[in-house]
Amino acid sequence: MLNTKNKAMKKLLKLENELHDLSAAKSVLGWDQETYMPERGIDGRAYSLSTLEVTGHKKFTRKYTGKLIKELESVVIGPEFSDYDRALVRNLKRDYEQKIKLPAKFVKEFSELASRATETWKKARNENNFSVFAPYLEKIVGMKRKEAKYLGYQQFPYDVLLEQYEPGMTQAKLENIFSELKQYTLETLEKIKQSNVKPKTELLKVHYPAEKQLDFSRKVVESMGFDFSAGRMDQSAHPFTSSSHPNDVRITTRIDENYLSTCLTSCIHETGHALYEQGIDIGLARTRLADGASYGFHESQSRLWENYIGKSPAFWRFWFDKLKGVSPENLANVNDEEFVLAMNDVAPSLIRTEADEVTYNLHIILRFEIEKDLINGEIEVKDIPTVWNNKMKEYLGIVPESDSAGCLQDIHWACGDFGYFPTYSLGNMYAAQIYHRLCEEYPDLDEKVARGDLLFIRKWLADKIHKYGKTYQPEDLIKMVTGEELNPKYFREYLKRKFGKIYNF
Amino acid sequence: MLNTKNKAMKKLLKLENELHDLSAAKSVLGWDQETYMPERGIDGRAYSLSTLEVTGHKKFTRKYTGKLIKELESVVIGPEFSDYDRALVRNLKRDYEQKIKLPAKFVKEFSELASRATETWKKARNENNFSVFAPYLEKIVGMKRKEAKYLGYQQFPYDVLLEQYEPGMTQAKLENIFSELKQYTLETLEKIKQSNVKPKTELLKVHYPAEKQLDFSRKVVESMGFDFSAGRMDQSAHPFTSSSHPNDVRITTRIDENYLSTCLTSCIHETGHALYEQGIDIGLARTRLADGASYGFHESQSRLWENYIGKSPAFWRFWFDKLKGVSPENLANVNDEEFVLAMNDVAPSLIRTEADEVTYNLHIILRFEIEKDLINGEIEVKDIPTVWNNKMKEYLGIVPESDSAGCLQDIHWACGDFGYFPTYSLGNMYAAQIYHRLCEEYPDLDEKVARGDLLFIRKWLADKIHKYGKTYQPEDLIKMVTGEELNPKYFREYLKRKFGKIYNF
Repeated sequence: MLNTKNKAMKKLLKLENELHDLSAAKSVLGWDQETYMPERGIDGRAYSLSTLEVTGHKKFTRKYTGKLIKELESVVIGPEFSDYDRALVRNLKRDYEQKIKLPAKFVKEFSELASRATETWKKARNENNFSVFAPYLEKIVGMKRKEAKYLGYQQFPYDVLLEQYEPGMTQAKLENIFSELKQYTLETLEKIKQSNVKPKTELLKVHYPAEKQLDFSRKVVESMGFDFSAGRMDQSAHPFTSSSHPNDVRITTRIDENYLSTCLTSCIHETGHALYEQGIDIGLARTRLADGASYGFHESQSRLWENYIGKSPAFWRFWFDKLKGVSPENLANVNDEEFVLAMNDVAPSLIRTEADEVTYNLHIILRFEIEKDLINGEIEVKDIPTVWNNKMKEYLGIVPESDSAGCLQDIHWACGDFGYFPTYSLGNMYAAQIYHRLCEEYPDLDEKVARGDLLFIRKWLADKIHKYGKTYQPEDLIKMVTGEELNPKYFREYLKRKFGKIYNF
Repeated sequence: MLNTKNKAMKKLLKLENELHDLSAAKSVLGWDQETYMPERGIDGRAYSLSTLEVTGHKKFTRKYTGKLIKELESVVIGPEFSDYDRALVRNLKRDYEQKIKLPAKFVKEFSELASRATETWKKARNENNFSVFAPYLEKIVGMKRKEAKYLGYQQFPYDVLLEQYEPGMTQAKLENIFSELKQYTLETLEKIKQSNVKPKTELLKVHYPAEKQLDFSRKVVESMGFDFSAGRMDQSAHPFTSSSHPNDVRITTRIDENYLSTCLTSCIHETGHALYEQGIDIGLARTRLADGASYGFHESQSRLWENYIGKSPAFWRFWFDKLKGVSPENLANVNDEEFVLAMNDVAPSLIRTEADEVTYNLHIILRFEIEKDLINGEIEVKDIPTVWNNKMKEYLGIVPESDSAGCLQDIHWACGDFGYFPTYSLGNMYAAQIYHRLCEEYPDLDEKVARGDLLFIRKWLADKIHKYGKTYQPEDLIKMVTGEELNPKYFREYLKRKFGKIYNF
């Protein structure tokens, strides 16, 4: 574990622990804001969060921190230090350099702009009026380009933004990966379109009482290995996972009484994230290493559970009988195979968050193509609606009737989160590769899952991935787990195997 | 409101706001710890709370703060400043001077001792073994005596501890007030003992389903004027009120399905506290003036609602029919008058928190007499059990069979909260005097309450007391509200009137 004997390391850890304590407080306050905070509590909450942010930022960006990091950099290569120590210093250095490169005035200005832009985006989406949002988005894009300049980049400004979400990833690498992904996804989609199989999705859309949905979901979450003595499950408008410590990890869900997938699928998805956080070695607690290796790696865990396990025939062989108790009258004449078909229905749709496993990545590729062109100055904000709709037509064969269901649907750009979207698809591809390795390790995986045994999966993931937290770069970690670098073929083979079977191709 | 134009005042407010934001975060984290935090979350939580505390303390005790306060002290008397500005500077000065008088090492040592002492106290209480706790309490008393020396005092060391909870109060003043209170309480108790009236308390101890108790309590809380858009109501092991902002005030309650008073009475009590917090002028938010005038004044609000309103015949004329819905079978043959009698039953008992309105103050006086003698060096820790039991015999005529039900029952001394207990009785007496004034203002108070109208009380209290927050010293505020200083006769007259009627004397 971390070296707590070296003098400089001790000093660094003291600082790092305090920084983490402040950010843990922010995390609990953020969770509270989305779950239990009374409506008018926002008045004080915004101030508290901002003061915690500024206090942490000031503490971190002192010259003292820079000196300490510099001192340790040359020392930490020694044999008395471990990969953990080196990772901590490497991450601190990266974050420190990024923070001090950005002028305080710029950071403040951007945070205020993003907050106003988010409010305006909500308005624009409600009113279906892109032109209201456009001037704000122009400023956001302008400032993100400026940020890329401050931070410095080699090939594309977009690279340095991407790096913040997926260390080691570049636009060029992504273009390769995504071009292959796009091609075989379009081929798969075409085959599905031509198939005669039509899953009966109506059976997901009957009445499932809220309380019973929650009970059922909780049982699934528990069986996955979520530790309720070190976590909670609550409700919020948008499901999320929040972690302030490996022993305090909270997931939220949302219930639609007339659509089962909303609650159940988001519970399985968020538990995937939560198991990552709960599985981090406790020796990394109170440091920035107590986090996922990257956004993409984090998403791989939620996706693996949601799609590879939670939507598999094996899973439902065990759980379907239990689900029947949630809505006995509606599921009386349905069997588990029909149910699994319905869960895996593929059909082009307008909204990313509701997309199936196949079309989902097309939504992401579309956003990636637009956002990199925006940041690199290839297109302008005013072009977005047209470009969006053309790409929707080209990739999915459908065009939104309104920008609200099109280029205004996501909050990410309003917050300035350029470089975030690709990590969703990277997550899907990491998941395929990790799942492939898992199946090699457990040739009887399906039999075990069909008996209701899920804990062995959690244990394997914790041992191979979770416990390390942010110690390894994603490109190293995927090699450690699977023996090779990220390889799109696993996702391609998975799509072929799973959907070929369902849709007969 | 606060002067936000003066340059030095602006600087002070910026600092004060940030300090408050940090302490607001602590308050939410504290609430979360008692309500929703998963069991093992305590590992990270203790660190977060301590880092927030230390960060705020460092920020506050810089020389910069002292200079700013000094600069403003001479300026704030000018006509462009208000009572609010002067109160803020006065309170900041008091708190700053206290904080810098205590060496950092002493503060840290005490906080660690108190934490260990609290753990040991729990153990000692569970095992009914005072001798386990005694060595810790000796250290606590020793350090509180040292604290009094650091802070400086005129007559008694106890004075300066008392001052922290009740500004302006002294041991000598308290001795006068309490000697009168003790005398007439003992006389009243004697008359009640000799009375033939025996309220049927069994009817509080029948089965009241938890959900229905909560619903009923929530309705009462709402009718008192608690604003649920600026607050919440949850459950915790010990009921409390937590406020991070006048627009985010949270109460908790506890439910005993076989004893109605636990939930209902604590809801009314905590709502009394909460209305104080919600009623504070929003212009004082994010400063230390957004608080009660003192612990005693805060308690006056909870007591006024709990005892003067919530246990009055007028109140139950309106609410008893509604309560019948909570336990229809058990309350079928009971009328509101019998019910009010049961709520107001007086009988000596061992546990302070369960004591009735008459005997409650004897519990407090006993603790006051012991704690001041401890701090002033008149008795020693080892004498406590004997002194406690002798006083119980003398004042209440009963003696606990175990120290767990005696001198080990309260957590206060283990935390080092010497000077806190008296504020409970001061609260009762402020309440009597305020209630007397309220009745002068509303001669038809009982009729209004019997019609279910409670909002006029909240409005009056907000207008006379709540809105000012901590702007006025308690001794000034009680004069502003009632025209005279704290006068024990009001509580005497109240006891005579209320219990004379019930017990026929």
